[in-house]
Amino acid sequence: MRRRFIIGIDLGGTNLKIALLDLKYRIQDKKVLSTQEFIKKESLILAIIDSINKIIEYNKLKKTNILGIGLGLPGPIDTWRGIVHFFPNIPGWKEVNLKSILEKRLRLPVFVDNDAKLMCLAEYKLGAAKDSNNAVCLTLGTGVGGGIIINGELYRGSSNASGEIGHVPLNEKGPRCNCGGYGCLEAYIGNNRILAKGKRLFKRDISLEELSSLAKKQNRKAKALWKTFAQRLGITLVGMVNLLNPDCIVIGGGVAEAGRVLFDNVRKVILKRAMNVQARQVKIFKAKLGNNAGLIGAAILVKEGLD
Amino acid sequence: MRRRFIIGIDLGGTNLKIALLDLKYRIQDKKVLSTQEFIKKESLILAIIDSINKIIEYNKLKKTNILGIGLGLPGPIDTWRGIVHFFPNIPGWKEVNLKSILEKRLRLPVFVDNDAKLMCLAEYKLGAAKDSNNAVCLTLGTGVGGGIIINGELYRGSSNASGEIGHVPLNEKGPRCNCGGYGCLEAYIGNNRILAKGKRLFKRDISLEELSSLAKKQNRKAKALWKTFAQRLGITLVGMVNLLNPDCIVIGGGVAEAGRVLFDNVRKVILKRAMNVQARQVKIFKAKLGNNAGLIGAAILVKEGLD
Repeated sequence: MRRRFIIGIDLGGTNLKIALLDLKYRIQDKKVLSTQEFIKKESLILAIIDSINKIIEYNKLKKTNILGIGLGLPGPIDTWRGIVHFFPNIPGWKEVNLKSILEKRLRLPVFVDNDAKLMCLAEYKLGAAKDSNNAVCLTLGTGVGGGIIINGELYRGSSNASGEIGHVPLNEKGPRCNCGGYGCLEAYIGNNRILAKGKRLFKRDISLEELSSLAKKQNRKAKALWKTFAQRLGITLVGMVNLLNPDCIVIGGGVAEAGRVLFDNVRKVILKRAMNVQARQVKIFKAKLGNNAGLIGAAILVKEGLD
Repeated sequence: MRRRFIIGIDLGGTNLKIALLDLKYRIQDKKVLSTQEFIKKESLILAIIDSINKIIEYNKLKKTNILGIGLGLPGPIDTWRGIVHFFPNIPGWKEVNLKSILEKRLRLPVFVDNDAKLMCLAEYKLGAAKDSNNAVCLTLGTGVGGGIIINGELYRGSSNASGEIGHVPLNEKGPRCNCGGYGCLEAYIGNNRILAKGKRLFKRDISLEELSSLAKKQNRKAKALWKTFAQRLGITLVGMVNLLNPDCIVIGGGVAEAGRVLFDNVRKVILKRAMNVQARQVKIFKAKLGNNAGLIGAAILVKEGLD
């Protein structure tokens, strides 16, 4: 019997992760390459194709062993037609039909989707939101990405652009956001904002990891920084809880490593400010699949797309 | 052949509307009674039963002509078990199984749900959101109610408490809201707030109707008032557009009568501040069914519940 695998790709602004997964979504092989050298669209596409061919070859497989290829991409994607509308942080991409480009060159089925949606899908199928029917998933990083599970399915919205929790306004007047809006959650709690605030507080460059570990050691300034962060995240989540009445909220991304100082304060804000019926219903979990969520979600996209 | 009807009831803090509808949701008869005299829970339940018996009798029908009774209720409702959790503006109701109480006394199928959800259902099945797949509906009144259509179905959430757009925070620090939260949209744009602002501006009591008609006559102060109102509503809707990527938003309730000064400004804010892909997708409509939306929604609830 022929062994069957799926290739998952998670493209970010800084690197490209590629993995070979079996049909139970277990990662068999994984490579990471930097994408910053590929300034041009065409060279990035060639790098993707090259990495796919190599991972097949290294694992002594043939294309006939590959069920399909799934890609999680950092921007708004028309998943039905396979089109990248644009990438906020990678120049040169505008309405590119990546699916058809790759399918022509690879002769394999290709599926593309937004990266945060795929992380949400993975956490729902195999991770922290496994027993949920209605879930909100967030990934906190340079950007704040999100996905929504509704009645046991990933909710895509009318143009596959739903789930942008990072771009729900936190204040009617607020800082300009990269998305063109004002006062968005991301404009307050994106990683760069935390790092800038940490630098001001500690009067030196300080990493997220150090800020987290200082908070765990009860450092007053670090704890206050995370508390403000959690308060702001919590208030946006109060809106999500009142609006979507989810049974769980999953928080992932590097920042989720801050741990209790983050989760306890988020829970406190929700209990204090959200409506009673909804607040009683919702559980707040840390994401389970870590860095691999995007790769696993990409594989799920392929399998469900072919079923 | 026996003629079949549905009875729809829309209970508010000030009055109770009851209607007899045919199976195409056309209203055949309608009565309105004041509910303010019924201070006690039991007397309000008796008034509901009495109004049902009377509308059957007046129309020379028998119970066998009635398919069922639907009730839209002003608070959080467990529609599956038929329980009223509580009413924010009617005292004395706490975890009341209104469905079973009414079914025992009336010997007819009874369905209960939140009033804003039923208005949304009606606008989706027969009104402004008819051709929509993913819609957000709002009713602007003393409170700001809402409902969400997802993939062609009313989205209820995990405890039938979804859709509370009025209780999405507009600012992280803001006025205390009736719901217990802070800075909720409703705390800024509920009718009482507009009336209080109108009174301050015009130095006399002034009705919503007059404020609307003054704005239509280009009165500067009235226009500025509605513009601020539309701006705030628009910013919350930016969040809905980015998060839910709906194809339409339906705005109803008395305040929607303000007309263009409201709708034009809401559209302007969304185009300016929402994310591109989502903003291009969404249309903003005025609700079509007016005061009857709740009654029609209650009848739809019965018919779909029995199907």
